[in-house]
Amino acid sequence: MSQFAQETAVEQIAETVWRGELCEGWRVGAVPNGGYVLAVAGRALSAALPHKDPLTVSAFYLAPTELGPVDCKVEILRLGRNTSFAEVKMYQQGELRVKVTAAYTDLAGLQGENWSAAPPPQFPGWDACEPSGQKGIEFRQRAELRLVSGNEVFRKREPNGSGEFQGWVRHRDGSDPDAISLLMFADAFPPPVFTIFGPLGWVPTLELTVQVRAHPAPGPLQGRLYCRHLTRGVVEEDGELWDSSGQLVAISRQTAKLRVPKS
Amino acid sequence: MSQFAQETAVEQIAETVWRGELCEGWRVGAVPNGGYVLAVAGRALSAALPHKDPLTVSAFYLAPTELGPVDCKVEILRLGRNTSFAEVKMYQQGELRVKVTAAYTDLAGLQGENWSAAPPPQFPGWDACEPSGQKGIEFRQRAELRLVSGNEVFRKREPNGSGEFQGWVRHRDGSDPDAISLLMFADAFPPPVFTIFGPLGWVPTLELTVQVRAHPAPGPLQGRLYCRHLTRGVVEEDGELWDSSGQLVAISRQTAKLRVPKS
Repeated sequence: MSQFAQETAVEQIAETVWRGELCEGWRVGAVPNGGYVLAVAGRALSAALPHKDPLTVSAFYLAPTELGPVDCKVEILRLGRNTSFAEVKMYQQGELRVKVTAAYTDLAGLQGENWSAAPPPQFPGWDACEPSGQKGIEFRQRAELRLVSGNEVFRKREPNGSGEFQGWVRHRDGSDPDAISLLMFADAFPPPVFTIFGPLGWVPTLELTVQVRAHPAPGPLQGRLYCRHLTRGVVEEDGELWDSSGQLVAISRQTAKLRVPKS
Repeated sequence: MSQFAQETAVEQIAETVWRGELCEGWRVGAVPNGGYVLAVAGRALSAALPHKDPLTVSAFYLAPTELGPVDCKVEILRLGRNTSFAEVKMYQQGELRVKVTAAYTDLAGLQGENWSAAPPPQFPGWDACEPSGQKGIEFRQRAELRLVSGNEVFRKREPNGSGEFQGWVRHRDGSDPDAISLLMFADAFPPPVFTIFGPLGWVPTLELTVQVRAHPAPGPLQGRLYCRHLTRGVVEEDGELWDSSGQLVAISRQTAKLRVPKS
């Protein structure tokens, strides 16, 4: 069993409650990565719903989470033939920390037209790319990152001004990604505002929505996280993830706040 | 009082329930426009919360809505100094139709850095642009659209292949936009897949998230709605809205399904 599968596992402790554990290894500072927390909710939804795969999942982060047990209270909102809808309230110490709403489906059964305005990335291979120069981020013990662009800001303190990080991500233990892991990998790049202002400050996520499009093929994921509009401290972070075969597997958007420390 | 204000008004009928009315004038086919429905929830949230302005609002559309009363049951999730979080369950005929989660704030009080990778559009003025060639859409009685690009598909049945509509939108009665109206205007352009496949089929929204950045200045809004990734019938629709002064006022993303009729 992969480390990710172990550390996002949930067990049913009541008719509508699944308990997970937020584990060491996933934190940025003191707080577990928001995508990792969302993946735990994703496991509870897979367990509770007849459809097992996330299609669209949206989380609001009400209060910082911490290491330890997390109770996922699932409310089914509607069960359809192709799509199930549910919400999850995530509690720690009796306090509501994260609120998730989701549409689940059977990804393998999706049928319809295909079209793309954006070709898959043509990155150099994993081995040819630089390990992320981020220092002291516990989360990198689990989500291993090789950057293709943006790394100058960590290696040389030179923001390139692009508002974008590009690169490869994978589980550190080498296990292959599954559909639930895309909820975590959608939040696995550094905040793109770092490429503009430097790796300063704190960029807490208010809300994160992930659209999953397909089960990923084995191997690392190629992706990008970028921002286009920072408005008085509020910024979106848009992500795209492709699998190793070049198939788009997820897109994401979050609302974050940039807190620059007073210098 | 503007038509939009009247037709999104809510009244409190119980401690946690606000009743609105889904009115004629806003439908696409038989179903009220999803952005309009979201704006009614937005009014209930403004009434229920200490913060009055939407910052991020996410809706899941579980079942089609219809004309008539809609009961908005509000649950406050967390009240913070700068941000309040709440959810709204929207019921018609006792059935849960739409589920909304939101972060509200005081937009005028936002403080922080500004940056943009995308300049405001430089469209010709409202009067120089073509009325949308969409025929028989009741919603155009309320959300008036002047297209700058994409209109060929309606006027000449010629999809331009771009995946994008660009243009101006405003209230038909000439009233100025407010922050809540941005929830509606974020869903006021035609589905961008029409520019690829023609104006065929039905593109129901599964989920819509709107990030509001500022109170709009008076006058029509400039905007675009575009898609980049259609995967076996699942597509995102990304929107950007600027006010008449060129200030970015909202961005949006929805998850939709393209249903092309069998020919």
